[in-house]
Amino acid sequence: MDLTNMGKAAKEAAFTLAIAPTAQKNQALAIIADELEAHAPAILAANAKDIEAGKAAGLSDAMLDRLLLNEARLRAIAADVRNVIALHDPVGSEIDSRVLENGMSLSRRRVPLGVIGVIYEARPNVTIDIAALCLKTGNASILRGGKETFHSNMELVKVIQSALSKANLPAAAVQYIEKPDRELVSQLLKLDDYVDMIIPRGGAGLHKMCKENSTIPVIIGGFGISHMFVDESADLARSISVIENAKTQRPSACNSLDTLLVHQDVAEQLLPQLIASLGERVTFVTDDSATQWFANAPKVRAAEAGDFDTEWLSYTLGVKIVAGVDEAIDHMREHNASHSDAILTNSIINAEKFVNAAGSAAVYVNASTRFTDGAQFGLGAEVAVSTQKLHARGPMGLEELTSYKWVGVADYLSRS
Amino acid sequence: MDLTNMGKAAKEAAFTLAIAPTAQKNQALAIIADELEAHAPAILAANAKDIEAGKAAGLSDAMLDRLLLNEARLRAIAADVRNVIALHDPVGSEIDSRVLENGMSLSRRRVPLGVIGVIYEARPNVTIDIAALCLKTGNASILRGGKETFHSNMELVKVIQSALSKANLPAAAVQYIEKPDRELVSQLLKLDDYVDMIIPRGGAGLHKMCKENSTIPVIIGGFGISHMFVDESADLARSISVIENAKTQRPSACNSLDTLLVHQDVAEQLLPQLIASLGERVTFVTDDSATQWFANAPKVRAAEAGDFDTEWLSYTLGVKIVAGVDEAIDHMREHNASHSDAILTNSIINAEKFVNAAGSAAVYVNASTRFTDGAQFGLGAEVAVSTQKLHARGPMGLEELTSYKWVGVADYLSRS
Repeated sequence: MDLTNMGKAAKEAAFTLAIAPTAQKNQALAIIADELEAHAPAILAANAKDIEAGKAAGLSDAMLDRLLLNEARLRAIAADVRNVIALHDPVGSEIDSRVLENGMSLSRRRVPLGVIGVIYEARPNVTIDIAALCLKTGNASILRGGKETFHSNMELVKVIQSALSKANLPAAAVQYIEKPDRELVSQLLKLDDYVDMIIPRGGAGLHKMCKENSTIPVIIGGFGISHMFVDESADLARSISVIENAKTQRPSACNSLDTLLVHQDVAEQLLPQLIASLGERVTFVTDDSATQWFANAPKVRAAEAGDFDTEWLSYTLGVKIVAGVDEAIDHMREHNASHSDAILTNSIINAEKFVNAAGSAAVYVNASTRFTDGAQFGLGAEVAVSTQKLHARGPMGLEELTSYKWVGVADYLSRS
Repeated sequence: MDLTNMGKAAKEAAFTLAIAPTAQKNQALAIIADELEAHAPAILAANAKDIEAGKAAGLSDAMLDRLLLNEARLRAIAADVRNVIALHDPVGSEIDSRVLENGMSLSRRRVPLGVIGVIYEARPNVTIDIAALCLKTGNASILRGGKETFHSNMELVKVIQSALSKANLPAAAVQYIEKPDRELVSQLLKLDDYVDMIIPRGGAGLHKMCKENSTIPVIIGGFGISHMFVDESADLARSISVIENAKTQRPSACNSLDTLLVHQDVAEQLLPQLIASLGERVTFVTDDSATQWFANAPKVRAAEAGDFDTEWLSYTLGVKIVAGVDEAIDHMREHNASHSDAILTNSIINAEKFVNAAGSAAVYVNASTRFTDGAQFGLGAEVAVSTQKLHARGPMGLEELTSYKWVGVADYLSRS
């Protein structure tokens, strides 16, 4: 397997995809959806091999469940592809346009990024999901899934490539790195002559490895401590329900609440209610400032060094009492708030101060941090959640898989 | 000199800058402009040391001229800073906003990137220029200029930091890496905990070094072969003047023309006129397809391998005859068109085909490639010219020094 040749073929395919009409790209997507269902037996047989190998390798039940495909899941994946067909194709639209003094009509026209490398872990649905989003936006993709999903992915990529050919698009528009050697990932990360962006979808280790080794721009994301500050003017009863939502609706999600900051003047009133509502499910990790209020909490421990820098991803919640919005902001800066943070308040001044000072990708006033999500934001699709500042921040939709080119039209114009 | 401490101080300063009102940032800029003029004697004395050292080191006259400051140049630099004051501050404006079905008001608000590392070569005006643009957009900057400009830059940074203090902004908002060790550049490129973007301003070697060693996103730009295709329907007399402009107005610029592609049906008519107009100044490097037309050209040679991949930056022009727009596009793809390209034509179909298929940051119809420039595009300032596709492409103005955060405002809203 020669990655340089894959890169060249992808770049070549990207030229074709970049000018493919939306109807043709949608046709390929429709064929993918249909053939996923038509080839269910072969796909499920391949998946059964992965499951068997996973059991033999001692994968956890949770991992095996992420790996598992069945008729219903396959239908859901096909339905997701059909949803992508319905989305607006951003390619070709003009972002802004103006006429310069010299008479040139100048605009920026959305174009695909080109070739996108995606490195991901266990779930086979990512293969279809990311290939469909790249295809819709006219990008070629080079995929590298986890070795646990090898057989499933081989079968899924076969469906995709056959659909591309049937829609008269180059099969190399979606390629898959089959061999398990980790060395191939390193090679992919250096293919800057051919690949325009790397999207890692997986744990923090994968992101770090990509950032440190890639000569191609990498979209870093999905991590960060989420904070919620309850200001003195907040409606406390309603605050409890928003805190509960942020912490317990799906604790394993990266936008679930990690640290609760409470204004000192409302601690006495808020915290007993909080313990009453969440105490059975949630372990509180309390700062010295907060400990006194948690004597009756069923599950509580004193915070240790590093606790306020920990993304819990579980039913654990750090709690700290602060003197006001300024101390809340200081705490968030010190603990690198970069994902989703919220203020609960009735004060316009404090809300604006919090929103402007927070270094996060998404900031909420009187809402749960759980909203940071492509579907919730109405983007139609979520490619990744970026916590870096370049190119895209927060949930990335189809537009974030595009770049632009400047287009200037004039009447034989020279620069003076 | 501890770069980690510089990074921490810059990040701290960036928090303050991010919420500084435009008036305060403009005040700092006004003081910088005034003090550049007030401290002219000290700055010019420092510059004289650099010039002396440069002469002793045998720098070319061209290099010495780039290094040189005098009263007039200093006044021009101060005037540029005052121009930045007049520019619109993009920070805080909302890019788009909507109300979601659940009642949340969701928008994207422009925010500074944070901390920008800038690595540049000889010209001391870059120090003021980039510091002013970063300051205007609320970004902290860490600067690293060429060793040839050391004394000048020390004096300029002193003026900047004093102005920051006078405007009650942190002096660490603009820091300069003084020591000449190249090792410090490598350290800067790994400061991803504190630095959000690296802008290299210099030659291809500098860009390559940054791309290969940085764990921070790098803006790559400024290179690329520029092509112009003269289609069969072009107005040939006016084409000559556009070609002349693209090739000769400033041959050393990265947007000057490198390769002329001529439709086979107009070669016989166009090329003798071209030789008559440009032949005294320009050396033609002709592909086999074109050689027959250049028998009378004063300066001509046959193209060798690599010539069509060479950015000439001089009075040299590659010429190739093509069968039509498709062959022109094929040639451009093969030779990695990525900067500025143009088609001269009267055909709407060919113009659209060319514009959509060109992989360049800027594409022109009936205009010179020389327009790719922040000032020409009306951006008010030019931070860099990007030839990568992420974040920004082509000339980067103030907006391209910003990111955005998502801001969601609701009435104690939970995710269902």
